[in-house]
Amino acid sequence: MILPKSHRLTPEQVAEITAIAGEFGCKIQPIIGAVRTIYAIVGDERDELMINRLEGLDYVERIDRIQSPFKLMDRRSDLASHRIKIGGVTLGEELLVVAGQCTIDPKNPNFFYETAAAVKEAGAHVLRGGVWKPRTNPYSFQGDVKSLDILMEASRRTGLPVDAEVMEEEHIGVALAAGVNMLQVGARNALNYSLLRAIGKAVAERDTVVLLKRGLHMGPLNEFISAAEYIAAFGNPNILLCPRGTAPTLDGYRNHPDESITPLLKEKTWAPVVVDPSHSVGKASYVPACALAAVAYGADGLCIEAHVSPNQGIGDDPKQAVTPDVLKQIIGQARQLWTLRRTGGKGEKA
Amino acid sequence: MILPKSHRLTPEQVAEITAIAGEFGCKIQPIIGAVRTIYAIVGDERDELMINRLEGLDYVERIDRIQSPFKLMDRRSDLASHRIKIGGVTLGEELLVVAGQCTIDPKNPNFFYETAAAVKEAGAHVLRGGVWKPRTNPYSFQGDVKSLDILMEASRRTGLPVDAEVMEEEHIGVALAAGVNMLQVGARNALNYSLLRAIGKAVAERDTVVLLKRGLHMGPLNEFISAAEYIAAFGNPNILLCPRGTAPTLDGYRNHPDESITPLLKEKTWAPVVVDPSHSVGKASYVPACALAAVAYGADGLCIEAHVSPNQGIGDDPKQAVTPDVLKQIIGQARQLWTLRRTGGKGEKA
Amino acid sequence: MILPKSHRLTPEQVAEITAIAGEFGCKIQPIIGAVRTIYAIVGDERDELMINRLEGLDYVERIDRIQSPFKLMDRRSDLASHRIKIGGVTLGEELLVVAGQCTIDPKNPNFFYETAAAVKEAGAHVLRGGVWKPRTNPYSFQGDVKSLDILMEASRRTGLPVDAEVMEEEHIGVALAAGVNMLQVGARNALNYSLLRAIGKAVAERDTVVLLKRGLHMGPLNEFISAAEYIAAFGNPNILLCPRGTAPTLDGYRNHPDESITPLLKEKTWAPVVVDPSHSVGKASYVPACALAAVAYGADGLCIEAHVSPNQGIGDDPKQAVTPDVLKQIIGQARQLWTLRRTGGKGEKA
Amino acid sequence: MILPKSHRLTPEQVAEITAIAGEFGCKIQPIIGAVRTIYAIVGDERDELMINRLEGLDYVERIDRIQSPFKLMDRRSDLASHRIKIGGVTLGEELLVVAGQCTIDPKNPNFFYETAAAVKEAGAHVLRGGVWKPRTNPYSFQGDVKSLDILMEASRRTGLPVDAEVMEEEHIGVALAAGVNMLQVGARNALNYSLLRAIGKAVAERDTVVLLKRGLHMGPLNEFISAAEYIAAFGNPNILLCPRGTAPTLDGYRNHPDESITPLLKEKTWAPVVVDPSHSVGKASYVPACALAAVAYGADGLCIEAHVSPNQGIGDDPKQAVTPDVLKQIIGQARQLWTLRRTGGKGEKA
Repeated sequence: MILPKSHRLTPEQVAEITAIAGEFGCKIQPIIGAVRTIYAIVGDERDELMINRLEGLDYVERIDRIQSPFKLMDRRSDLASHRIKIGGVTLGEELLVVAGQCTIDPKNPNFFYETAAAVKEAGAHVLRGGVWKPRTNPYSFQGDVKSLDILMEASRRTGLPVDAEVMEEEHIGVALAAGVNMLQVGARNALNYSLLRAIGKAVAERDTVVLLKRGLHMGPLNEFISAAEYIAAFGNPNILLCPRGTAPTLDGYRNHPDESITPLLKEKTWAPVVVDPSHSVGKASYVPACALAAVAYGADGLCIEAHVSPNQGIGDDPKQAVTPDVLKQIIGQARQLWTLRRTGGKGEKA
Repeated sequence: MILPKSHRLTPEQVAEITAIAGEFGCKIQPIIGAVRTIYAIVGDERDELMINRLEGLDYVERIDRIQSPFKLMDRRSDLASHRIKIGGVTLGEELLVVAGQCTIDPKNPNFFYETAAAVKEAGAHVLRGGVWKPRTNPYSFQGDVKSLDILMEASRRTGLPVDAEVMEEEHIGVALAAGVNMLQVGARNALNYSLLRAIGKAVAERDTVVLLKRGLHMGPLNEFISAAEYIAAFGNPNILLCPRGTAPTLDGYRNHPDESITPLLKEKTWAPVVVDPSHSVGKASYVPACALAAVAYGADGLCIEAHVSPNQGIGDDPKQAVTPDVLKQIIGQARQLWTLRRTGGKGEKA
Repeated sequence: MILPKSHRLTPEQVAEITAIAGEFGCKIQPIIGAVRTIYAIVGDERDELMINRLEGLDYVERIDRIQSPFKLMDRRSDLASHRIKIGGVTLGEELLVVAGQCTIDPKNPNFFYETAAAVKEAGAHVLRGGVWKPRTNPYSFQGDVKSLDILMEASRRTGLPVDAEVMEEEHIGVALAAGVNMLQVGARNALNYSLLRAIGKAVAERDTVVLLKRGLHMGPLNEFISAAEYIAAFGNPNILLCPRGTAPTLDGYRNHPDESITPLLKEKTWAPVVVDPSHSVGKASYVPACALAAVAYGADGLCIEAHVSPNQGIGDDPKQAVTPDVLKQIIGQARQLWTLRRTGGKGEKA
Repeated sequence: MILPKSHRLTPEQVAEITAIAGEFGCKIQPIIGAVRTIYAIVGDERDELMINRLEGLDYVERIDRIQSPFKLMDRRSDLASHRIKIGGVTLGEELLVVAGQCTIDPKNPNFFYETAAAVKEAGAHVLRGGVWKPRTNPYSFQGDVKSLDILMEASRRTGLPVDAEVMEEEHIGVALAAGVNMLQVGARNALNYSLLRAIGKAVAERDTVVLLKRGLHMGPLNEFISAAEYIAAFGNPNILLCPRGTAPTLDGYRNHPDESITPLLKEKTWAPVVVDPSHSVGKASYVPACALAAVAYGADGLCIEAHVSPNQGIGDDPKQAVTPDVLKQIIGQARQLWTLRRTGGKGEKA
């Protein structure tokens, strides 16, 4: 939809926009209003170059796009009936819980083994463990590939599938070769399209699941979903969208909690939403409330940092990891709320 | 705490800040660090003029304030044990529900009477009805004082106390004289200190409750609580803090939902938090999720727009009012979640 | 423009939106696209109630409005040729400078008299002086009506017209009776529609100018311009739009500078833009850069806080007022930049 | 600085924080205030793990850090006297202009050759040309390595050094081998620490300059500067900080212009600031105003998209590239403003 600056375009201007649209297989249809005439783009309006060229015209005020910019992730695509499974959970049928440490300490593997056993006991379905770490401060610990062995050993001991963040192309192959079941893209790489493409290619023929964190800014939801499209375009649609708080920070939290975008995402895409309350609020004491709020908004899963002894953890664990006891209570309450929402508060669904 | 731009102030600079602090009854104490020396303000650092004068010095990088800027509303004040009661509910002991129409239609009073009966039946404790309305568009309906008679008649019929927004000093006296039990300050007047003072004075000797909406911006929480201090300073501490969404808007909602500030408010103030999900999301279909999220974050109450026939409503009701059926379901689920949080998910508290 | 959730509305749905539009004198025209059909509202789409009712339909995804919501302030209205004059300046022909103290100190009137003389000498056209003050902290100095006498005396001594902020209806009459030439609406009252209407009525038959500050949030520009429409609706279109920084704060400034909205405002409205760099940045040392940036963006004027001895000032003056010397330099550079922009950098206009 | 939740810590709590600080070589010094005691961390407080562990204690309200988190980029570091040179310009002594196309069209190299000649003639010092492109839409043109040959050929023809964005590790080697003089990190990779480290390593022994765009969110400035520290840590401090607009978008622009951060950056770091007005506003007609505003705020350079025939460009060029004529005018005005700021508006510096 082209909105001109004036009330009506001149015949020459109409000819110009018609020519541009024509190059991209589209037509222009005027919609004559009482005061102002606007011009619909009839056809596939998704070509960015066409939009950019039309927006560049000095008599155009703006272009309102009415089509979804993504094809595969669109709620109306054929993929909408696809169901993602991991850790014994079919997304949408049961609340998925991913839990574990922000960062595995390669010098103290026992902490991770104990955490792994404890989060399993608390009810988690997937074990999270940070191997490589993106750190704001270049002089902080950046992770260690040895941690990958610890992660996989914990997987063997508990039988849980594992989730690890990958930060560069090289990590992808290493992680997949080791047997990582869920690749995580962190917020700082949420728009790193090279990495997204590399992941898409690498998982194309696999049943690996990708947990895609939302970027750090309060940007448009379409941008978030389009990042998932990058991965899906190669053939594997096992993508979970993960809001994890945005910037600017809400006065008092680490980020600005954004679980409230869940219903809006679900109007646009069929992809499940798995919220990370740990990074959203950034402090263990706030995590239970944020986790419940995510379920209130309809989240399909939660990704929570937990540690058997947070203060002995490294990375973000000392401040934001919950203990296994708290994790167990969160999971219990979250499941009850999940049921409550589905039954309309009247007990179990028939 | 004064942070200088340099690593250390000169003796002349120390003398200058000492003199300024001294005018306000404070002293300066240097804290000598390994690299940098900073300067603590010892005494009551809350005087804005002292802070402004210190911040104005060109060798000062910034002032970090460590005291709460509000006295009465502070969680550590003597007022912290004060309990607010309305509609048979003691805040903190039971979830308060305020519900009713955004705008009373003075030409169709029966809608409001029916809505009043229906929200009571659904479980609401206070009846909300818009008499005067702040409208972005100057040519929209701005409310009608006749609606006040309709509001009070509905109160008589249902026995419910009533809540009405006041927008100017004159409204306050009219509303109180008519018997309005809860005065609401809207988001657009959240920092209208003249109005806040006028309300503070008017309710000083009464048991009227004030529902103070948060302003439209993602500003500091202290500013919100300080607005409550304006009212409390005159003697009536019956103030409910009401997050209602902020700007810039979250892509897809009317505002940016902000129920997540609830735990942060509760760390700073003893005042109950009553969240308005209707304005936060701005569309009826999203209201139940937002209401539950508010309870998840620990809200003490909800303020929800409801209408027996939303599409025949005026003001915002056609788009954001829920029907009484939906309201009833929200209240039922919200109460269950309220109990769930208090019992740790293990059933009723002993 | 109505965008449905589905690709196409059913005949019953089309009948319903047609009926709603019809109640407001509008028609519905489908625009049949290759994939999706959308529905134009033909007629005056500005009625908020019609929009609210259409947005409330559960098969409607959203409404895109294509008409300006304001009539008088629209760049295409007949008022566009109106020229505002004050202090010997016709807005648009010369850079207007409003300068003076944030707060007049009623106990030390000489500071203000000296400041008044100095800002005149520096080149200011209008003298600013705060009489009543909105303060975040209820225990801070809130202004004193005695300051109004000092303001008017300074006006007599210098011959400059004066600007004072009014915060409640009562102030308006007092200020106008005293002879105040420019009424200022502060950021905290930017959406206080009762105050805006009261000002509109009070200045309807006068040549008073209103300086309307932008609200504190990064909200839509239409909201800002609509606030001006409230005043203009009563007959006096002498309104200056004043960006002054928004929240959330930019890390390091008092607010988030927003002079960059100037070109966007000018595409929507004919009203002159007068930027307040003092509140935007909140610290004297940043004011010159922000003032120049405002002129770079096409501002028609500047509103700057100045004080002969900032550290002896009250209110915000100790931290954000510039000295008369700095003010003079700002005005000198701003005028050169103003000329530079108009001549394309090639020297004086022919 | 540790701020406790209570007015004073217990001896056991003091012992605990002292022990934690001790592990990182720091001490704790209490600062006894009239009402509240706070606790200074004496020593190097920059270790994130120490901060995280202290923040994780449930009796700690927050930690206020008073040291700069970056060492090399700090304005007070020895590197502060380092001068960066490129294209015949020493940053800080003359306004640097980087200009060229967003995207080189590999099918139409002549456009780029003509643009290169034109931007040189207009006064640019460095030629920008997009080879690889990060695109929100996975189905858009993603760039072509053939464009690198075109870029280098244009460099040879004009004698200008060239700037190209690199998006993955592989690009770095290819670009440096071809002779690219300035590597650009785009906003979407601004926190891609793997890429930053790879660039740091690759340019360590070279005189290559890195143009580091700011990320898309309104996050803290320290995060931006810390990203530069990643590169500098390997030995090459030739880093230019490039604000380019943030999200959420200002109503009407492509992004939220952020040239106003320039003075704040300069208080923290010695690194030159080169503003990109083209992405900030996203439309050619707004670029000149934004460019001048950047210079008003003290920017050391500008990075501007230009094209001899914008509407025949690809990528963002049709909407945001200016023509060489406009570029020339921008450069002319920007230089005059640069001089104006340095001479205080009184003509040439002595």
